[in-house]
Amino acid sequence: MMIKHSGEVLEERSSLKGTKGCTLRWLIAEKDGAEHYAMRLFELQPGGLIPVHTHEDTEHEIFIVEGTAILDDSKDKIIVKKSDVLFVQPGDKHSFINNSAMPFKFICVIPII
Amino acid sequence: MMIKHSGEVLEERSSLKGTKGCTLRWLIAEKDGAEHYAMRLFELQPGGLIPVHTHEDTEHEIFIVEGTAILDDSKDKIIVKKSDVLFVQPGDKHSFINNSAMPFKFICVIPII
Repeated sequence: MMIKHSGEVLEERSSLKGTKGCTLRWLIAEKDGAEHYAMRLFELQPGGLIPVHTHEDTEHEIFIVEGTAILDDSKDKIIVKKSDVLFVQPGDKHSFINNSAMPFKFICVIPII
Repeated sequence: MMIKHSGEVLEERSSLKGTKGCTLRWLIAEKDGAEHYAMRLFELQPGGLIPVHTHEDTEHEIFIVEGTAILDDSKDKIIVKKSDVLFVQPGDKHSFINNSAMPFKFICVIPII
């Protein structure tokens, strides 16, 4: 069994084009022995942005750990907050804008393909 | 895209034998369209117990959302706390004991088989 604090995990900048103020940590990944899905922790700073994008083949299972943000699905802008759950299916457009004064943190689980 | 607050999701008692003061919510499950893995939120009350058990074929990817507990892997007793990450692989013995005064909450992702 692997046990660690999320703060021990390498914090990386998101590579998605147009993203601002966003880092992620691969909490449980292929290198840890995960074969089917990976768990990441995202942190979006105040003023930060993850621009609208989609994934054609992969879903996201998201749980918001801290803070609030605006979710833009290219049709509506929805405020999402701590303890909200989001199931982003393949092809679903999604974006996050942190216009609050506090960091926005969420768990995002993706398949390992 | 499905968006909901975890508090809206049906809270069920754990069916694991010997468990005390433990509920779970299937935040994202097969009925929601998830094909590969499911996300659950567990809540273990003060004095609550999930007894030592294993799963032969399934892994757990766990993120602790709130509180502290004692994790007993049948060899060691380890204190685990908010923002800790646990990767419980098939066959790994695990147990949680909440001897604190506050609820212990964690996200647990399992494969859909």
